[in-house]
Amino acid sequence: GSSRPMKQTKESPNVGDVMSRDVVTVFEDIPVEKAAKLIISGSFDHLPVVSRDGRLIGIITAWDISKAVASGKPSRIAEIMTRRVHSVRLDEPIELAARTLDTHSISALPVVDREHKVIGMITSNHLSRLLARRR
Amino acid sequence: GSSRPMKQTKESPNVGDVMSRDVVTVFEDIPVEKAAKLIISGSFDHLPVVSRDGRLIGIITAWDISKAVASGKPSRIAEIMTRRVHSVRLDEPIELAARTLDTHSISALPVVDREHKVIGMITSNHLSRLLARRR
Ligand SMILES: C[S@@+](CC[C@H](N)C(=O)[O-])C[C@H]1O[C@@H](n2cnc3c(N)ncnc32)[C@H](O)[C@@H]1O
Repeated sequence: GSSRPMKQTKESPNVGDVMSRDVVTVFEDIPVEKAAKLIISGSFDHLPVVSRDGRLIGIITAWDISKAVASGKPSRIAEIMTRRVHSVRLDEPIELAARTLDTHSISALPVVDREHKVIGMITSNHLSRLLARRR
Repeated sequence: GSSRPMKQTKESPNVGDVMSRDVVTVFEDIPVEKAAKLIISGSFDHLPVVSRDGRLIGIITAWDISKAVASGKPSRIAEIMTRRVHSVRLDEPIELAARTLDTHSISALPVVDREHKVIGMITSNHLSRLLARRR
């Protein structure tokens, strides 16, 4: 009823408030095994792929690596990464990130700056965590 | 302010309202490649592993398959699956599911009935989708 705090509803956070900032990125010429090792050591599912100057050019996930396993293994992530990568900006509302994830049935978005350089990562884990803390 | 609808805050859904019911489960003696194929064909990341009588005994994810790639490949999922699997019940509030995901840094929970049989799956994608639809 009316005695409940409405904080959560009123101040909806932005992507920048929720994202993780320590993102591991990779170049497209690394072997699939190397990408797999990075995913395992970091306990995450997604690796943004960047050009030499740090611009986002793709994404590779544990799912893509499973795909390589399912179909005989290509040697470089360039062969299996997704090039039409969706991304989001720091100052965008989390609802927009959530909608983008939902629309494309994906679970993470690289956060990019104006030069398309990767500055963070926002995942459905970050967003569902907001529900965990709500009461 | 006070003119905002409070619906979302008042009627919080249960796991059963949000989970997916068409879950693919596997036995522990299938090869890793077969698990990878199921994950790819279903577009999901998590496969609950069940005993012959349908009880939950583990979980295998795209992440575990990446781990197999990173470390030389074992032949059966029994060798790489996680046996201490966290699960949730149909009638539990989604906040509990969200907290369990958060606490263990995982992104999906099998939903089990009283006999520990798998009846659904709830993921951080399902939960973040709730934010997408909020306004
Ligand atoms: C720490 S998570 C990180 C990667 C990914 N987000 C995921 O959920 O698999 C990876 C490990 O968690 C395990 N895992 C995933 N869901 C689980 C669950 N419901 N209960 C127990 N372990 C789980 C996987 O088997 C894998 O070994």
